[in-house]
Amino acid sequence: MQTLQEKLVAEFGIDFSDLALLETAFTHTSYANEHRLLKISHNERLEFLGDAVLQLIISKYLYQKYPDYPEGEMSKLRSTFVREESLAGFSRACGFDRYIRLGKGEEKSGGRNRDTILGDAFEAFLGALLLDKGEKTVEAFLYQVMIPQLEVGNFERVTDYKTALQEILQVNGEIAISYRVVSESGPAHDKVFEVEVSVDERAIGRGKGRSKKLAEQAAAKNAVEARG
Amino acid sequence: MQTLQEKLVAEFGIDFSDLALLETAFTHTSYANEHRLLKISHNERLEFLGDAVLQLIISKYLYQKYPDYPEGEMSKLRSTFVREESLAGFSRACGFDRYIRLGKGEEKSGGRNRDTILGDAFEAFLGALLLDKGEKTVEAFLYQVMIPQLEVGNFERVTDYKTALQEILQVNGEIAISYRVVSESGPAHDKVFEVEVSVDERAIGRGKGRSKKLAEQAAAKNAVEARG
Repeated sequence: MQTLQEKLVAEFGIDFSDLALLETAFTHTSYANEHRLLKISHNERLEFLGDAVLQLIISKYLYQKYPDYPEGEMSKLRSTFVREESLAGFSRACGFDRYIRLGKGEEKSGGRNRDTILGDAFEAFLGALLLDKGEKTVEAFLYQVMIPQLEVGNFERVTDYKTALQEILQVNGEIAISYRVVSESGPAHDKVFEVEVSVDERAIGRGKGRSKKLAEQAAAKNAVEARG
Repeated sequence: MQTLQEKLVAEFGIDFSDLALLETAFTHTSYANEHRLLKISHNERLEFLGDAVLQLIISKYLYQKYPDYPEGEMSKLRSTFVREESLAGFSRACGFDRYIRLGKGEEKSGGRNRDTILGDAFEAFLGALLLDKGEKTVEAFLYQVMIPQLEVGNFERVTDYKTALQEILQVNGEIAISYRVVSESGPAHDKVFEVEVSVDERAIGRGKGRSKKLAEQAAAKNAVEARG
């Protein structure tokens, strides 16, 4: 297996200087606790720093990208982008999961695939990167890894309107919600899908998107909003 | 009265380029709402940005200043530093209150001295400064205006251990808490005070600090912690 350092150079052009710092970013408390006598640092302090730099970079991105959004909308989007599940997804996509140092108990109970641990390691990595290379590099990394995914809505539960719709409708017992594509338009590289959502075969919303998944979300959003 | 621009140059060496942006930072929603037809921007979006840059700069400061603090302690300190009352205090100290554009109703009801409005304007100013001059300048401004005050604990309710102690002890009725200086040491520019806190003339804690006020807080903290 590639070392983490090699991987970072190869995939992101990041040549970490302080390898101890990098190691700390990938050390879960459970590992540090198991090796207490060695006084190994864990990643919680770096996570604190990484969270803050992430928030700022995402805030700047949203401010520039959506000049007409009120503060409330930007806040909502930001919290969706930086939520644990989303960060865990980016952590997996970067292959970070394989490099986290876990305690034995945590490893046994499946900690390596736990969203909290993966998301925290992602933030801790950003914190370490901030210290090692500065904010510009953190920004470049996020613009390579995270922002393009945000732009296509391709990450864990942006705002999961499908789930929201289900929760709203199922309050009164089991119901059958279905989605179907009603049209596809545009050239192959720039397709637009239109989806209709129905409940018990009655249409309650429509939406468009650049993938079926996004169009379904848009249709669910339309249905949720129609219910006021 | 000096214009805000003149004041910023004179006191902080900040020569704002985008004066419309600066004006927006000091425009409360109530003012924008009253002049709706003029489509005046208010400061909420800038506040969103300013809050994020403030959090990052304070996080970096805490990370470096307290290398032994766990994440939880840093979080607690950060939220005390950036709480509304604290930011409102810095806004007043900078004389920002006089420059905020308020709606008439808000002005009449004392909005100019309201912590929310003052704190938000402080954050919005940081946001505007970030856009106009970049993060280094925001950092320099905070290291001039805010950080020195944090270091001496001289801001609204850092963690007010004296009040905390009083609240703990008064649960069982009125009691007399007193503080007295038990020693002063060091040269004039670098004095250290030691204070003892007593309840009904029985000593319950001691603490040191670079001012009587700080030593009292330290003594109260010691007493609070001794009670577990």
